[in-house]
Amino acid sequence: MTVPCIICVAITGSLPQKSDNPAVPITIDEQVESTQAAFEAGASILHAHVRKEDGTPTSDPDRFARLMEGVRKHCPGMIVQFSTGGRSGAGRERGGMLPLRPDMASLTVGSNNFPTRVYENPPDLVQWLAAEMRTHGVKPEIEAFDLSHILQARAMADRGELEGTPYIQFVMGVKNAMPADRDVFDFYVATVRRLFGPDAPWCAAGIGRHQIELNEWAIAAGGHART
Amino acid sequence: MTVPCIICVAITGSLPQKSDNPAVPITIDEQVESTQAAFEAGASILHAHVRKEDGTPTSDPDRFARLMEGVRKHCPGMIVQFSTGGRSGAGRERGGMLPLRPDMASLTVGSNNFPTRVYENPPDLVQWLAAEMRTHGVKPEIEAFDLSHILQARAMADRGELEGTPYIQFVMGVKNAMPADRDVFDFYVATVRRLFGPDAPWCAAGIGRHQIELNEWAIAAGGHART
Ligand SMILES: [Zn+2]
Ligand SMILES: [Zn+2]
Ligand SMILES: [Zn+2]
Ligand SMILES: [Zn+2]
Repeated sequence: MTVPCIICVAITGSLPQKSDNPAVPITIDEQVESTQAAFEAGASILHAHVRKEDGTPTSDPDRFARLMEGVRKHCPGMIVQFSTGGRSGAGRERGGMLPLRPDMASLTVGSNNFPTRVYENPPDLVQWLAAEMRTHGVKPEIEAFDLSHILQARAMADRGELEGTPYIQFVMGVKNAMPADRDVFDFYVATVRRLFGPDAPWCAAGIGRHQIELNEWAIAAGGHART
Repeated sequence: MTVPCIICVAITGSLPQKSDNPAVPITIDEQVESTQAAFEAGASILHAHVRKEDGTPTSDPDRFARLMEGVRKHCPGMIVQFSTGGRSGAGRERGGMLPLRPDMASLTVGSNNFPTRVYENPPDLVQWLAAEMRTHGVKPEIEAFDLSHILQARAMADRGELEGTPYIQFVMGVKNAMPADRDVFDFYVATVRRLFGPDAPWCAAGIGRHQIELNEWAIAAGGHART
């Protein structure tokens, strides 16, 4: 590959708790410390969720601001991506931190099932989040939980709702959404190339036990890896 | 083709009203009359929604019972498929007519966006509808609004939640869900063949202006048509 491999690190998801794994960074200081370790090991993008004192997910802009301040200081040049995912808040709360102008933010452009519930991204909320990202100069990472989400990103870009070439992330291995299926993965890659051009960037995230498999597929196929 | 082409007729969807098109059959008598005309013209499956007096959609089992009685009488041998779609009721109401033992019923196994809202099919409701269909000997038609729904049908069949080979219907052209995209259509067909075998039956429905295009694609590729 001529393009250097980008490694995107998700230091803290929205679900794991200290009770699951005492090493999960929860406080902002712990998050900055983990991010710096990953940055020094070669990660170039931070995908960030934040937590309340009790460890539950939140979209609190103050916490995102403190995290960004720490990362800017300790990891110069690292790309900061905030999650606007639905586990951390309801409705427009999910985008309350976008005025902080992170480099990127995640954007889910459709709905799908999760293990025990519907992951709700209603069309008007998707439109609003995309508009906030345009207003504040934040580049979206499209979280493709299903194939139609890639085509929806193309339709939104055609309508001027996304600026530039969107960065697409395939999310595979979530129960009741898209499994980690090799043929589907290959079709995802072909679809991104068809709709956004051969050089469009993309990455892939495998959930849980599928993480390493998806990283291997992604790196071999010219994509970026999410850890 | 050696298999005779099956034509599936959706005489009344859940949305059109008399104010949109005075020819839309709304009363049970009108529905039976339209079904008989389609049956005599060669349709072999009826995909049925029912309406209240005021034309709004409902899941009322009494209406479904009267419709089935009329169709059994006037269209001998026609396959009756009831819709369990979310426009006609909320939660388990959607499956309240399954004890009537229609030949088939539609089953959506995931969630997705619709033009202005989320089409919610939470995992526990999907499980319950599938169990009701097994209990009452009703064959599901899987409404695939996105690619993961085809893979989810395979996972459900593997767990014994669907009996026999599911009949998959691709739904394309719904705004904010899957557009009518030829490459995706071809991958849908390849995926059904890969997961359910080369002879697995499938059909395709194009919404609105995509209806004729999808019928052409489906018939040319060896699938069945939905009008
Ligand atoms: Zn990424
Ligand atoms: Zn995330
Ligand atoms: Zn059909
Ligand atoms: Zn229907």
